[in-house]
Amino acid sequence: MASWQEIARTKREHTNSLIPKEWRLSKIPTPEEQCDIAGTYLHQFLTPNEIEITETPAEGILARTTTGQWKAEDVARSFAHRAALAHQHVNCLLEIFFNAAIEDAKKLDAYFAEHKKPIGILHGLPVSLKDQFHVKDVDTTIGYVGWLGTFEGKKGTNKERVFESVLVEDLRRMGAVLYCKTSVPHTLMCGETLNNIAGYCENSKNRKLTSGGSSGGEGALISARGSPLGFGTDIGGSVRIPAAFNGIFGLRPSTGRIPYEGVANTMDGQNSILSVIGPLSSTIGGINLSLRAVLSQSPWLNDPLIHEIPWREDLYKKTLDTTRQRGKLSFGVLRHDGICQPQPPVTRAINMVVDILKEGGHNVIDWSPPSHSRAAEIANAAFSYDSATDCLNDFALSGEDHAPQVMLGRRGKPQFNATQIAANNVTKRQYQKEYLDYWNSTAELTGTNEPVDAIITCVAPFPAARPQKFTHYMYTMVFNVLDYPCMVIPVTTADKHVDVVNANFESLNDDDKTTQELYDPELYDGSHVCVQLVGRRLQEEKVVALSEYISERLRETKAATKL
Amino acid sequence: MASWQEIARTKREHTNSLIPKEWRLSKIPTPEEQCDIAGTYLHQFLTPNEIEITETPAEGILARTTTGQWKAEDVARSFAHRAALAHQHVNCLLEIFFNAAIEDAKKLDAYFAEHKKPIGILHGLPVSLKDQFHVKDVDTTIGYVGWLGTFEGKKGTNKERVFESVLVEDLRRMGAVLYCKTSVPHTLMCGETLNNIAGYCENSKNRKLTSGGSSGGEGALISARGSPLGFGTDIGGSVRIPAAFNGIFGLRPSTGRIPYEGVANTMDGQNSILSVIGPLSSTIGGINLSLRAVLSQSPWLNDPLIHEIPWREDLYKKTLDTTRQRGKLSFGVLRHDGICQPQPPVTRAINMVVDILKEGGHNVIDWSPPSHSRAAEIANAAFSYDSATDCLNDFALSGEDHAPQVMLGRRGKPQFNATQIAANNVTKRQYQKEYLDYWNSTAELTGTNEPVDAIITCVAPFPAARPQKFTHYMYTMVFNVLDYPCMVIPVTTADKHVDVVNANFESLNDDDKTTQELYDPELYDGSHVCVQLVGRRLQEEKVVALSEYISERLRETKAATKL
Repeated sequence: MASWQEIARTKREHTNSLIPKEWRLSKIPTPEEQCDIAGTYLHQFLTPNEIEITETPAEGILARTTTGQWKAEDVARSFAHRAALAHQHVNCLLEIFFNAAIEDAKKLDAYFAEHKKPIGILHGLPVSLKDQFHVKDVDTTIGYVGWLGTFEGKKGTNKERVFESVLVEDLRRMGAVLYCKTSVPHTLMCGETLNNIAGYCENSKNRKLTSGGSSGGEGALISARGSPLGFGTDIGGSVRIPAAFNGIFGLRPSTGRIPYEGVANTMDGQNSILSVIGPLSSTIGGINLSLRAVLSQSPWLNDPLIHEIPWREDLYKKTLDTTRQRGKLSFGVLRHDGICQPQPPVTRAINMVVDILKEGGHNVIDWSPPSHSRAAEIANAAFSYDSATDCLNDFALSGEDHAPQVMLGRRGKPQFNATQIAANNVTKRQYQKEYLDYWNSTAELTGTNEPVDAIITCVAPFPAARPQKFTHYMYTMVFNVLDYPCMVIPVTTADKHVDVVNANFESLNDDDKTTQELYDPELYDGSHVCVQLVGRRLQEEKVVALSEYISERLRETKAATKL
Repeated sequence: MASWQEIARTKREHTNSLIPKEWRLSKIPTPEEQCDIAGTYLHQFLTPNEIEITETPAEGILARTTTGQWKAEDVARSFAHRAALAHQHVNCLLEIFFNAAIEDAKKLDAYFAEHKKPIGILHGLPVSLKDQFHVKDVDTTIGYVGWLGTFEGKKGTNKERVFESVLVEDLRRMGAVLYCKTSVPHTLMCGETLNNIAGYCENSKNRKLTSGGSSGGEGALISARGSPLGFGTDIGGSVRIPAAFNGIFGLRPSTGRIPYEGVANTMDGQNSILSVIGPLSSTIGGINLSLRAVLSQSPWLNDPLIHEIPWREDLYKKTLDTTRQRGKLSFGVLRHDGICQPQPPVTRAINMVVDILKEGGHNVIDWSPPSHSRAAEIANAAFSYDSATDCLNDFALSGEDHAPQVMLGRRGKPQFNATQIAANNVTKRQYQKEYLDYWNSTAELTGTNEPVDAIITCVAPFPAARPQKFTHYMYTMVFNVLDYPCMVIPVTTADKHVDVVNANFESLNDDDKTTQELYDPELYDGSHVCVQLVGRRLQEEKVVALSEYISERLRETKAATKL
């Protein structure tokens, strides 16, 4: 029997062999030789037409593919090509099915030619998927060697390479073109993306930094314009961290809006804190249209955990209208959580957003919620209920080694029992209630007699983590405990001349000190810096509208600065 | 230190001492002497005015109290009086606070006199509450002697007799008058209502039968017209069983609509199958107005587990409109679940409803879902994760004995661990998905190309359980596993001349045989018989509208038969 190393290498070589020969590069530069592949570097390998298509945002692509201006096949080929180029540099893919995509795209073109109308609202839009989604004819491994050729580690289920997840069915029905699945850290419980099949996934903007995780392949791919829109998952930050590290938009919706049914997962059945599916895109328009599209399919009819809440255009419109009225909106700003302070570029990004909000006439107050360290305890408990039994079983299928970065909390210790799990669920609910009460209480502070509309904070204390140096997850994880919708908004890039080391830094604790010491202006120069906008539970439409407002104002400000 | 028997007796005597002397009866007839106290029997102790008030349904009371026609004080006194009478016969109360209610009612009357308008939409409506709700100045025990004088079994919390549940705050804000809390089986995990404080709660319509549980006090009280509207909870049928046994309406909503925040519970933190709060009322109008009222308070702002779904008048109206169109609606009828067949009066009630639907021009198909025995396994596992640790701890607080009827599943065996709980959660989700797919698949059977709008089945296999003879819980429990909204609709009463023993009965198994043998036409004669209408998850408005239609048609049919 082949060793796990051989099986992994065979799979890796097979995947790479699915890249057409003419798209393969003979030599890949090292990160030192070419640090940034998210800018114009890849242009040299692309035609002007391919560059135009791949640098058009999702909403722009749809405007053309749903009106017959662009052929789905051309769009699919262009993104497949750029995805192949990105993958060869940063290892962002686990599954490649470009041929199936091109066949699907041809069918869409034939449909349009015959009916003079698109097959659905996503007609011809390439969509990338994190390797948790089941797609026919290819593997789903979430990075485990032992899952190759199986259905979630099991053989003989009759689902292997046949079964498709509910969201995959929905996307196909709407005319999306599926062409690749993106890499993840094995176990999914990690803010970096690496596994024994695809290897280490680098950050596309700064290959010396991590692409984040667990949807790191999505982040790196979309950042390099190898995809206009992708879907990841988030149980502690796994959509938001890669979105932030790669400088794109990413939404962590509340549970119950985007169908998770039929999607592979780690520690499936741990239901204190549920993983959710979220879209990532280079534009807020991509997030907006993806959420509308998913909800247009009435996902509550096919996933028993989805709430019957369609896209609420009234909430979206009302919020957008209010952004134009001075003094009406209020925001809480959390500059740090009292546990770990952000590095200088991150603090600057938060301040930039605060300035924009104030210039818009909106109210900004300091956010002083119940301690986030309590949420950390709740989440850490939930993620280690089973003492890593599920993950260790999956590693044992092949006998493979696991990366030191993955969280195998409480490994070797006794599992939580029912009483302990119930106690943690009660603690979580009490924390959610306290946080809710705090949110309501801000009505007395905003000056409008209404509580804040959203919170502004960072996604992580750094623009992107350095490999094996992810010190603090709580800026994302707290909102999984609370189940609040969160949007990652790209704000700026780190600038070594502006974002200098803070000589007067006073650390709160050792981790805080370490985090700040990890800031290296030279290393981070040019890296993306994002913030997180957080809304009340199930108010995704409001979060989208506020994010559109902020990103539009940021764009205007940047344009004005350049003039 | 006093024995638990003494403590319980002291509490019981204190509670009964809160009944005004002029309302106390010197002798209570035995069930043999007076079997039915839900009809006109209590009239002898009431004034004509009290009878008029207490026999006016909730919607009728509000029409008068919110317009100044009736004083809140008169209404409160009348219901308090009738509740006191009912309690003396069937032991339905655990807490009495008539004086506080009358003071509150006087304030409402003063408000109306001053402002010429009601304080809120429930102005002056008496509302009874199951003894899980925290109300200031009184105990909350859920039947445990050890909880007396504590906050959920704990002392020194500063919440004892001060803290109020979110729904209690909401009800007060809307002008409801709170006056009593109703009895439950200790542990709440039982279809009969008995505990060492209040004793055994009998069925008001037929005192030889059980009032059901765990909201049995509510069922018995409302049935005797001692309350126009009450709130119970349901994790396996605990609203629906008492509603059905006592011949009133009862709604088990989906999780996430009525705020449970701050309500005492058993096995709190078991979150595979959540208990939900549901209203019980003698009229469907009472259910309708209670749901509208609760949702008018935006409960998602005060309970982190409530979904932001306001009352959807459009769904309600559209459903009502459709009931008037022949051929448009479809129903699945589950005459039995393949495990336990209903007794003759119950089967007749189902058939009566089917006939009415067919007469209305609607489609009725047989319901053949995934096996309900699988749901039974899931629920039984969930309810015994902790091997009864929580319940046994609460009994141990006082050292009291527990009733043989309460479920202390897997007592003495090891608790479920995290892996086992997760596996049950996955099994549950898969079952929910299969059931959803089955529901969708009925579009091919109804003749309308649309799946069924609702399911009709029984609530239990008997009109009401005989004491210590509750053989089969699955007609209710399956819908807790599925999280579907269910309404109990009173249909008829058992008639010994019509509902004769089925001589041709063929049993499916021993429990089925036992259940059928427990049917005694003489014993059950005159007992209420109800059915259950079940909708898709979160479609409470549709369930209310369909129930209104069916109950109105039943009323018309009865009226026509009498002519």
